[in-house]
Amino acid sequence: MAVITILGAGAMGSALCTPVARAGWEVRLWGTWLDDHLLDAIESGKNHPRTDMPFAKGVKTYRSDQLEEAMDGANVIVMSVASVGVPKVTEMALPGMAKADAVWLTSKGFCEAPDGTIQLLPDAIRRIAKDNGVTLPPLVAIAGPVKANECAGEEPTATMFGCKDLDVAKKYAAEARTDRYAIDASDDEVGVEICAPMKNVYAIALGIADGLQEKTGMPHHNLKAATFNRAVKEMSLLGQALGAKPETAFDLPGVGDLEVTGLSGRNKVYGVRIGRGEPAKEALAEMDRLEQTVEGVPAVGLAVKLVEQSAPQLKQELRLLDAVYQIVNGNPDVLGLLIPAVLPAQP
Amino acid sequence: MAVITILGAGAMGSALCTPVARAGWEVRLWGTWLDDHLLDAIESGKNHPRTDMPFAKGVKTYRSDQLEEAMDGANVIVMSVASVGVPKVTEMALPGMAKADAVWLTSKGFCEAPDGTIQLLPDAIRRIAKDNGVTLPPLVAIAGPVKANECAGEEPTATMFGCKDLDVAKKYAAEARTDRYAIDASDDEVGVEICAPMKNVYAIALGIADGLQEKTGMPHHNLKAATFNRAVKEMSLLGQALGAKPETAFDLPGVGDLEVTGLSGRNKVYGVRIGRGEPAKEALAEMDRLEQTVEGVPAVGLAVKLVEQSAPQLKQELRLLDAVYQIVNGNPDVLGLLIPAVLPAQP
Repeated sequence: MAVITILGAGAMGSALCTPVARAGWEVRLWGTWLDDHLLDAIESGKNHPRTDMPFAKGVKTYRSDQLEEAMDGANVIVMSVASVGVPKVTEMALPGMAKADAVWLTSKGFCEAPDGTIQLLPDAIRRIAKDNGVTLPPLVAIAGPVKANECAGEEPTATMFGCKDLDVAKKYAAEARTDRYAIDASDDEVGVEICAPMKNVYAIALGIADGLQEKTGMPHHNLKAATFNRAVKEMSLLGQALGAKPETAFDLPGVGDLEVTGLSGRNKVYGVRIGRGEPAKEALAEMDRLEQTVEGVPAVGLAVKLVEQSAPQLKQELRLLDAVYQIVNGNPDVLGLLIPAVLPAQP
Repeated sequence: MAVITILGAGAMGSALCTPVARAGWEVRLWGTWLDDHLLDAIESGKNHPRTDMPFAKGVKTYRSDQLEEAMDGANVIVMSVASVGVPKVTEMALPGMAKADAVWLTSKGFCEAPDGTIQLLPDAIRRIAKDNGVTLPPLVAIAGPVKANECAGEEPTATMFGCKDLDVAKKYAAEARTDRYAIDASDDEVGVEICAPMKNVYAIALGIADGLQEKTGMPHHNLKAATFNRAVKEMSLLGQALGAKPETAFDLPGVGDLEVTGLSGRNKVYGVRIGRGEPAKEALAEMDRLEQTVEGVPAVGLAVKLVEQSAPQLKQELRLLDAVYQIVNGNPDVLGLLIPAVLPAQP
């Protein structure tokens, strides 16, 4: 039985245990130094505090000081910690990663390298490995419309594995598949990876359209749909500039994940507050007070930097990214920014 | 001042009056023999009964027996009647169409020719013209995420004009544009046209995912997002088989219009009923009782015929179309049909 060690006992890491255990893997879940309370809960048979779902049966848990033991003999290591923790956990896990057949990645976001370069996480992980003289096995980026609680609850879920080596993506897509967790495979690592942080940015704009409805009493469905459409287009354009295939943004990592993120989630809720008329700063403070991290807020700043560094030719074209950046940074003319950003320019 | 005559005083025909009047056109609205009560309402200054929005100022209305007068000197004729009425109104309007510079089309659906061939409406209109020895000016297909009430209310709205002659599409996209009604242009008439009836079919499936949530008390957001994603993919595949560009389904007529249709609308509501557990037949009878036409129901049968006639190589591939067809026709295993239809097959 192949062994998979998942690093990070948060919502997504713990939820992923369910399908891979059901697919027949020996599953180990390692918690970081921030995850003790999560492991306490699931070890005592309670629901996972983040997903409120029962934890997968037969999965062994490991505390932060048991990393070596957790990775011993693992065929696959999965990076599932919050994006801010990826550099540190990567450094800690390099010995296990080097011995594994593959490293999977459900963590999502941008990473700022020491020289200020904004990188996608697979590039950041490879950089850290190289700096430490470690050669990594293939990386598999995982993205798609996956709410962790539904994945843990075995509700029907579709996702995509992206690996530069398509055969590797296909192999694991087959081996981790269940009748409730279906996996598509792609060789477009960049395309799979770029959509995840960008959809958090664009979900803010979808929330704004919802909030405008609350504010004005008039539906803004046409505006929301135009915003959705523009967001998908910009994800595809940005991906292509970074080497992705255009179509990946039109598939599960883009269209699919934006759809699920627009249905619920904290980025959307933050956008609703702004659309309703709350100043962006106050809306964020209120989300902070409720301990609701809005990932799209730091992501929009990093995305703008990424564009400046790696796709400057797109700066004018990514109108919706610019509008969200300005709105998040306090420009109060929300509708005045959103309309020209999402409605088509004169052809 | 260019003259535009809109045929059909229903929700979309009357709503279109607002932007084109504001863009500076002389606008005439002709009502069919079924539209007298609609014209009565707007002529007496009431809101339009279908959109509950005020009618555009300065627009002249014409009754069904004033068609010739309504079309006299018109530069553009717009077909905006329900799809079932398109053949008859086309025959009636051929003299005016032949003299116009262009025919626009907001009516959406499939049309069954006398020989049983399922056609898109532009092809049906051209066939009827040819049978009557009339040469038509360019046809402009109009589609996108446009709820009529929001268009009439000057809420921000994006749409696409598709004409085989791109210059014609661009010309009118510029001439009908306002700061609240923005128009993209495409030369992909088939792509613009095919998405409109198909999105009604697929909106039923989106509604089913919502209904499953009501039935089970568990969100099915992952399933809904996978359904959305699959629907977009199938619209693109079917479009390509009929000669469309792949990307049009990923733009306003596909992604955009499916998003707006999934937010509300009768096809979605019908799907919700089925997802909740109502037998399809009873759900439809209840919608009929409420005078809520579910356009996706006849569309799914015509779409299946269209595939058999014009894209038989896609019959196996269009899994979601087939699932909706079976569900609408009474197969009670709703979840058992939907899951394999929308989750990715093993790559």
